[in-house]
Amino acid sequence: MAIYNPPSRDQRFVIHEVLGAVDEYKAMPRHAEVDADIVNQVLEEAGKFCAEVLLPINQSGDLEGCSFDPDTHSVRAPQGFRAAYDRFRAAHWQGLAAETEYGGQGLPHLLQIALYEMQYSTNQSWAMYPGLTVGAYECLLVHGSKAQKDLYLPKLASGEWTGTMCLTEPHCGTDLGMLRTKAEPQADGSYKLSGEKIFISAGEHDLADNIVHLVLARLPDAPAGTKGISLFVVPKFVPVGKAWDAKVGARNKLYCGGIEDKMGIHGNATCQIILDGATGWMVGEPNKGLNAMFVMMNGARLAVGVQGLGITEAAYQNAVAYARDRIQGRSLSGAKQPDKPADPIIVHADVRRMLLTARAYAEGGRAFSYWVALQADKQLHHPDEGERKFGADMMALMTPVVKAFLTDNGYQCATECMQVLGGHGYIRANGMEQLVRDARINMIYEGTNGIQALDLIGRKVLMDNGARLRKFGALVQKFVEEHGTSTAMNEFVTPLADLGDKVTKLTMELGMKAFANRDEAGAAATSYLRVIGHLCFAYFWARMARVALTRIKEDGAKVDPFYTAKLAVARFYFQRLLPETAYHIRAARSGAKNVMELPAELF
Amino acid sequence: MAIYNPPSRDQRFVIHEVLGAVDEYKAMPRHAEVDADIVNQVLEEAGKFCAEVLLPINQSGDLEGCSFDPDTHSVRAPQGFRAAYDRFRAAHWQGLAAETEYGGQGLPHLLQIALYEMQYSTNQSWAMYPGLTVGAYECLLVHGSKAQKDLYLPKLASGEWTGTMCLTEPHCGTDLGMLRTKAEPQADGSYKLSGEKIFISAGEHDLADNIVHLVLARLPDAPAGTKGISLFVVPKFVPVGKAWDAKVGARNKLYCGGIEDKMGIHGNATCQIILDGATGWMVGEPNKGLNAMFVMMNGARLAVGVQGLGITEAAYQNAVAYARDRIQGRSLSGAKQPDKPADPIIVHADVRRMLLTARAYAEGGRAFSYWVALQADKQLHHPDEGERKFGADMMALMTPVVKAFLTDNGYQCATECMQVLGGHGYIRANGMEQLVRDARINMIYEGTNGIQALDLIGRKVLMDNGARLRKFGALVQKFVEEHGTSTAMNEFVTPLADLGDKVTKLTMELGMKAFANRDEAGAAATSYLRVIGHLCFAYFWARMARVALTRIKEDGAKVDPFYTAKLAVARFYFQRLLPETAYHIRAARSGAKNVMELPAELF
Repeated sequence: MAIYNPPSRDQRFVIHEVLGAVDEYKAMPRHAEVDADIVNQVLEEAGKFCAEVLLPINQSGDLEGCSFDPDTHSVRAPQGFRAAYDRFRAAHWQGLAAETEYGGQGLPHLLQIALYEMQYSTNQSWAMYPGLTVGAYECLLVHGSKAQKDLYLPKLASGEWTGTMCLTEPHCGTDLGMLRTKAEPQADGSYKLSGEKIFISAGEHDLADNIVHLVLARLPDAPAGTKGISLFVVPKFVPVGKAWDAKVGARNKLYCGGIEDKMGIHGNATCQIILDGATGWMVGEPNKGLNAMFVMMNGARLAVGVQGLGITEAAYQNAVAYARDRIQGRSLSGAKQPDKPADPIIVHADVRRMLLTARAYAEGGRAFSYWVALQADKQLHHPDEGERKFGADMMALMTPVVKAFLTDNGYQCATECMQVLGGHGYIRANGMEQLVRDARINMIYEGTNGIQALDLIGRKVLMDNGARLRKFGALVQKFVEEHGTSTAMNEFVTPLADLGDKVTKLTMELGMKAFANRDEAGAAATSYLRVIGHLCFAYFWARMARVALTRIKEDGAKVDPFYTAKLAVARFYFQRLLPETAYHIRAARSGAKNVMELPAELF
Repeated sequence: MAIYNPPSRDQRFVIHEVLGAVDEYKAMPRHAEVDADIVNQVLEEAGKFCAEVLLPINQSGDLEGCSFDPDTHSVRAPQGFRAAYDRFRAAHWQGLAAETEYGGQGLPHLLQIALYEMQYSTNQSWAMYPGLTVGAYECLLVHGSKAQKDLYLPKLASGEWTGTMCLTEPHCGTDLGMLRTKAEPQADGSYKLSGEKIFISAGEHDLADNIVHLVLARLPDAPAGTKGISLFVVPKFVPVGKAWDAKVGARNKLYCGGIEDKMGIHGNATCQIILDGATGWMVGEPNKGLNAMFVMMNGARLAVGVQGLGITEAAYQNAVAYARDRIQGRSLSGAKQPDKPADPIIVHADVRRMLLTARAYAEGGRAFSYWVALQADKQLHHPDEGERKFGADMMALMTPVVKAFLTDNGYQCATECMQVLGGHGYIRANGMEQLVRDARINMIYEGTNGIQALDLIGRKVLMDNGARLRKFGALVQKFVEEHGTSTAMNEFVTPLADLGDKVTKLTMELGMKAFANRDEAGAAATSYLRVIGHLCFAYFWARMARVALTRIKEDGAKVDPFYTAKLAVARFYFQRLLPETAYHIRAARSGAKNVMELPAELF
C-alpha cells in the first residue's frame, strides 16, 4: 500500500519564502486578505483530504476500473469514488478558486494548483473528475452569456454538476480543423448537435447529478477548418428553472457509447460520447469556438503538468520509503550497518541518483508551476496593466513548458523510482507501476508533448520574435546580476547565466533557420522545450538555493535541516540534471535534414 | 492488431555484409559448414514462425494472462500458448544452438540470438518459456556431471522439459549472499531442499511434461555469504530411467504457491516456488553454485538485452504503419497531400525524430548484439586460443552493455513509438502500451540495469585496469585509421574517434577517483554505461555506413534503396543520438559528492 505525506513544508517554503506570494496578493484587491495563515490552513486541510480520502481508493480504483452498462449507457466509477466526491463537495474544495458570487471561495489559483498537486499525487483518476469541472467553469466564466453563467457556474463551483471538454473525434485529435460534429440551429435559439466524440474523460459517471459537456461542433454554413468551429454547452440533463434554483430536467439526446480499456487511469471513464440530436446552446460567438475552448485547454494543460509533478512527488516518497527499509548488499565504501546482514539500499550512489532525480524534479517543478499559477492570478486580478500583461505573457509562454517538461519528468521519475524497488516495483501490489501507467497519459492528452514543443517554439517564441522569452530572460538576468558576485552562489549563478546565454543564441539560430524552412522549427522543437524547461528549473533552483544559503548563514548550527537538504538537492540538480542541456542543444542545432531526408516509403 | 514483418533484410545485411560471419565460421570446425544459405533459410523460417504463430497470441495472452489454481498448485498459460509451443518443438527450434549429440541442431549462437530477437518482437511472454530452457541447458552443459547431462540435456534440447532459474527469495534478490534455502545431504547422494523462491519466471505452467529447476541453496555447513551457495537441479517430476529413455516419475516435493499480478509479461507465469523437502542433485562443486549459475545468468542477460532489441523493432514497425496511415494536420513546410484533408503524420519532423530514434536503436542494437553473439561462438569454438580469449573478453565486457543499454533503449523507444499514436497508443487494443509494459521488466530482471552498470565499471573495466576495454578500443582505433582519410566517412569517423578519446580519458579519471573512494564508481556507473553503449553503437553504425557508402558508390543509380536508407539512419544516429554522451560524460564526471552528501534521514 502506497504512502503519502503532504509536502506542506516545501509548499510553504515555495509560496512564502521563494515566491513571497502573500505580498504579491496584497497588491491584488481580490486577494488582499489572503495571508499566510489562510494559505497554510488550506494546504494543511487539502493535504489531509488527499492523504486520508483519496489515497486509500487509488489502488482499488485502478484494479476495479470503471464499468459500463451498454443497456443503460451508464458508467459506474470504482467503489468509494462517489463517497470521496461527496466529501470533497461538502468541504467546498470544488469551488476553491471560483468566484464568490457563484458560491466559490475566491481563493488564488496558486492554491488551486497546490490542491491539484496533492490530488494528483494521491489519485489522478479521481482528481480528473473535479479537475475537468474547474476547466468547464473557467471556460464558461470567460465566454458564457450572463444567463449561461448564472445557470451553470454555481452548479459547477459546488460540484453538484461536473464538466467535460468534447473535442476529439475518431478521425481527428490534434487536427481539430477536420471535426465533423454538426450543430443545427433551432427556432428557439438552441442547437441540435449530432456526431461522435471519443476520448472524453469523465464523459459519463455516477458521481454527480448532471454532466455539462462543452462540445466543439460546426454550424451548417461554417467555413472549413479551424475557422468553422463553434462551442456549445450540452448538458446531459437539460436544466429546468433558472440560476441557483435550476434542477435537472429531461434527459438530453446524447449518450455514452462505451469506455476505453487503457494502460492506466482506470478509475477515470474515458468515454465515447454519441450526440444524437442533443440540445445545446452556443457559447461565445459563432466560428470562434476553438478560441473559447482554449481557455479550458490552457487551464487543463497547466493541470496536466501538475499531474506530472504530483506523480513525481508520490513516486519519490514511496521509493525513499523502500530504499530506507530494504536491506540488500553493502555500501561500496564499506558497511554502514555492520551489525545487520546488509545495508539499506539508500547507501548506494546509484539508488540515491534515482531518488534525487525525482526529488530535484519534484521540488523544481513545484517552484516553477506555483510561480506560473501566481502569474495566472496576476493576469486576472492585478490592478496594474503592465503586471497583468506580464502575467499573461508568462502564462502563454510557460503553459507548454509546464505541460510537457513536468509530464516528461513525471514519467521518467515514476520509471526510475519504480526501478528502486527492482522486481518488487513491477508487481501491482506495491503501487509503483500504477504511477508509471498513470503518468504515461500525461504526455499525451491535452495536446501531445510534441504539440506543446511546437506551440512553444512556434507560437510562443518565434512568432513574437522572442519578446516573451526575453521578459523571462530579464528575470534571469536580474538574478544573475544581483547574485553574481556572491562566492557561495557562484556554483548556481554561473551555470544559470551560461544557459541563459546559450538559450539566447540557440533561439536566434533556430529563428533564422526556421525563417528559411519551417521544418527546422519542428525538428528542433522537442529538444528546445527541454532546454527551456531547464532554464526555468535552473532559475528557480538558484532562487531556492539562495534562500537556503541565507537561512544557513543566519541560523548557523541551529538551522532547520530542511535548508541543508534544499542546498544539497540544488547542487544535485545543477551537477546532474542541468547538463542534459548539453545534449539537447546539440540535438536542436543538428538541423532538419537528418530527420527529413529519408523518404516516407523507406521508413 | 499489431503487425510484424521479420527484419530479414537487415539481419542478412548485418550477418553477411557487416560481420562477415560466414567467413568467421569457416575457421571454426563445429560451424565450418554454416553457409549463407543455411543462415538465410533459418532467418526466413524463424521469421515466419514468429509472425504467423507467436504474434497472433501476443495480445490475447496479455489480456488473458496466466491463471493459478490454488487447489492443485497448477498454472495454465494463456490460450494458444501450448499449441504454439508444440509447433515450436516439432520444428526443432528449441535445440537450434544445442549440441547435436544431445539432439540439437548445433548451429551458431548468432542464429539463436536472431531467433530470440524475432520471438521477443512478437511475443516476449511466450518466448521466455523456451528461453529459460536454453539457459538451463547451457548451465548444465558446462557444470553438470556426465549423468546429469545425459539425462537432462536431450529433454531440454527438444523442449520436452523446460527449465527455470531459482535465485530470488523474498528478502534477497540482488544480494544472493543472504539466501536461506537449505539443502540437506541424503544417504543416496541426493539432497532435500527447503525454502521459498519468488519471481521464478516460467516456474509452473502447462506447456511441457516436466520442469527442471536450477536452484541456489545452502548446505548445512556452508559459509555465510555468496561463498556458501551451491547449485542444485530439482525437477518437478523426478525422472525415471536414464538418458534418452528417461520418463517423468514421482511428483517432487515442490509446488507453486502463487503467481504475481504484474505490470506486463502477463502471459509468462512469475511464480512463488515452495521447496518442501524437494529432492535435488548438486550441480558442480559445493559452495561454488553462484559461479555455475552465472553461465545461465550471463546467457539470460544477453537474451534480455535482445528482448529490448525485439521490442524496439516491433514498436518501430507499428508506429511507422500508423504514421503513414493517420492523416492529421499539415506539414510545416507546406501541404504534402493537398488533395486530401490532411497529410499523413509521417511528414512531421518530430514524428520522424521518434521513429528514427527507434530505428537507429534497433539497427544499431542488432549489429552490436549479433556481433557479441559471434564472439560467444568464437569463445566456444574457435581453434585459436587467442581468438577464444578475445571472444571471452568481449563477452564479459559487453554482456552488461547489451543487457542495460538495449533494454533502456527498448523502453524509451516503446514509449516514444506509443507517443506517435497519441491517445490511440494509450488504448490497449492498439498493442503499443503492451510493448511499454513488457519492455519495463527488461530493465529489472537478470540484475537491474543499475547492477549491470556497476558490473561494467567495476568488474569488467576497472578490475582489469581497462584491459578488455582497450581490446575493444583497438578495434575502434583500427577502423578510425583505415577510414579516417575518407571524405565520405569523415562525418562518422570524426565523432567516433572523438568519443573513443573521451572514453579513454573518462575511464582513467574514474579509475583514479574510484581508487580513493569506491562510491565514485557507483555514482558514475549508469552514465558511464550509456557512454560505453554509445561507443559501441557509434562503432557499428560507422561500420554499417561504410558498407552502405561502398554499395552506393559501386551500384550508382541502381543501388538498392536499403543502402540509401541505412546511410540516412546512420547520419541520424550520429547527429541526434550520439550527442547524449555530452550529457552523460558531464554527469559521470560530476563526482560522488552530489549524490552522497545528503544524509539518509533527510531524504
